[in-house]
Amino acid sequence: MSIVVSVWRSPMKLGTLKSKNLDGEFVVISQDNTRYVKVPDIAPHFRRAIENWSECKDKLLKVYEGLIGGAIKGLPMDENLFHSPLPRTFQWADGSAFLHHVKLVRMSRNAEMPDSLYETPLMYQGSGDNFLGPKEPIPQIDFAHGTDFEGEVGVITDFVPMGCTAEDALKKILFCVIINDVSLRGLIPEELKAGFGFFHGKPSSSFAPFALTLDELGEAWNQGRIERPLDVEFNGEFFGKANGSEMHFHFGQLIAHAARTRNLMPGTIIGSGTVSNDSTEVGSSCLLERRMIEKINEGVFKTPFMKVGDKVKITMSNKKGENLFGTIEQTVVQA
Amino acid sequence: MSIVVSVWRSPMKLGTLKSKNLDGEFVVISQDNTRYVKVPDIAPHFRRAIENWSECKDKLLKVYEGLIGGAIKGLPMDENLFHSPLPRTFQWADGSAFLHHVKLVRMSRNAEMPDSLYETPLMYQGSGDNFLGPKEPIPQIDFAHGTDFEGEVGVITDFVPMGCTAEDALKKILFCVIINDVSLRGLIPEELKAGFGFFHGKPSSSFAPFALTLDELGEAWNQGRIERPLDVEFNGEFFGKANGSEMHFHFGQLIAHAARTRNLMPGTIIGSGTVSNDSTEVGSSCLLERRMIEKINEGVFKTPFMKVGDKVKITMSNKKGENLFGTIEQTVVQA
Repeated sequence: MSIVVSVWRSPMKLGTLKSKNLDGEFVVISQDNTRYVKVPDIAPHFRRAIENWSECKDKLLKVYEGLIGGAIKGLPMDENLFHSPLPRTFQWADGSAFLHHVKLVRMSRNAEMPDSLYETPLMYQGSGDNFLGPKEPIPQIDFAHGTDFEGEVGVITDFVPMGCTAEDALKKILFCVIINDVSLRGLIPEELKAGFGFFHGKPSSSFAPFALTLDELGEAWNQGRIERPLDVEFNGEFFGKANGSEMHFHFGQLIAHAARTRNLMPGTIIGSGTVSNDSTEVGSSCLLERRMIEKINEGVFKTPFMKVGDKVKITMSNKKGENLFGTIEQTVVQA
Repeated sequence: MSIVVSVWRSPMKLGTLKSKNLDGEFVVISQDNTRYVKVPDIAPHFRRAIENWSECKDKLLKVYEGLIGGAIKGLPMDENLFHSPLPRTFQWADGSAFLHHVKLVRMSRNAEMPDSLYETPLMYQGSGDNFLGPKEPIPQIDFAHGTDFEGEVGVITDFVPMGCTAEDALKKILFCVIINDVSLRGLIPEELKAGFGFFHGKPSSSFAPFALTLDELGEAWNQGRIERPLDVEFNGEFFGKANGSEMHFHFGQLIAHAARTRNLMPGTIIGSGTVSNDSTEVGSSCLLERRMIEKINEGVFKTPFMKVGDKVKITMSNKKGENLFGTIEQTVVQA
């Protein structure tokens, strides 16, 4: 059969298999998540493909279309073999763009919501040296550290020059991802009080296995936001389905914020912060929020943070109910 | 001539030439800094050598001894060709281990020095995606951002497991470096107040061109500290010569702090914070300190932050006066 390369549109799903190589093995995934194929001849790993995106893009698209059309058979899907799409990256910065989350955190401690939070995103410098895989256990040193999940959406960018505008920054987005930003709530207050920001409280995050181009995401990508619910299950039960549409700052604004005093190199990952909606029906994307709501409504925290054996599952589906990014499914283990 | 490989000791100077490759070209430098040789057959870049240190170490040592003995001629030194030893790294975390610096900052705003600062290091998560070269200009967007240099010492580590003790962490140190941790003082108070730590206030740092193994540093390495003065010149005049020996937390303690809730991957860089001594004679390693001393003694800040055209030079010599790490020499330019 003939392979048609889309010149104007580039729907694609890309990912990384776990391997001895710290950057893993680069693969293209079929649209229906049933097959994948290794592409070492196009790039040794995903980050390298992003660093040479203009050279690699059409080659990868040919493979993707070959998988869809059947010209390339590939291997049957086994998500257990997958690492996070970028097992490590040089720049991982996480915003806090869902203001309902910020409000809840502040309400619980009777703090005002300053006007500045509507104008300037909160963002912390994360550590991208050593992400967990989507099914990798979350190590817990001590229950008192208050292990929590944070369901987030995120983007992977091309090179972004210092001082880039929010509008131009939107054009630098290559991929969307979903994230579990693991947080140690018991350690955060002390380290924020010390004034130097998050460090111990933000150990390695994990990502769902497939990164999607904006064309692959299709109409769910709108005005710099991923307008789908993020489905969160905790120990097999519904926990949340907050929608990405309520993001106060869109990803172009978050990227521009990150690039205010520096260039961002290709492969930069920018997170949205916990996906959170101002609605009691959608639940939450982290334990902290549920605890806040308990505190506000009932005066006490009831839900404990994660214990050894607790399991979180995070996915996102399209309108047809098809899993878009593959599945984050992690269990807490004793470190 | 015969080449003798030291089994027990590994003195070495390693570095990186600027190139199109984002990780640069890996080189070995002669002890006297007069020659260097490219070693692409040993590792494509310095970070890869660190990731395979047990395989690469002896090969690199042979080259180093060949350069010293004359069996390898190499090329004549031109520091302008050099990038920072690691042009980028996945983990860059900077402590604040010289408490005199911390005290000065607090005195100037009449803040107490809490006991906790004697027991737990301050450390921020830095961004290692895009370091400046040792002679690269420092871009300034706006004078109001308060551009400052911070002369620091630092180490590059091997893999460090989560929960590593300070004593074990000392054994994970592979190299020492010296650093200019560029800081935007005008932006820091607002972002620390927001609570999420440094981001805009800490743009790209730069490093002197040569990384030295502990054996190369010799007796200047003592109990986890680099016991030599850090020579800082500002616009051609003496500015500081504070000694690394007064570091309150040694590098083993800083590494253990960084590894409290996470593994540190090979190539992690840990900084000391501004080198600072409790002595009026040694001067300072950043403008902020000089300004603090002016404020404390005279009631007003007199020295402005860096203007376009201002130049900082940072070096460290051994007891014989020989330049150890090569030279950081950077000028502020309009961005």
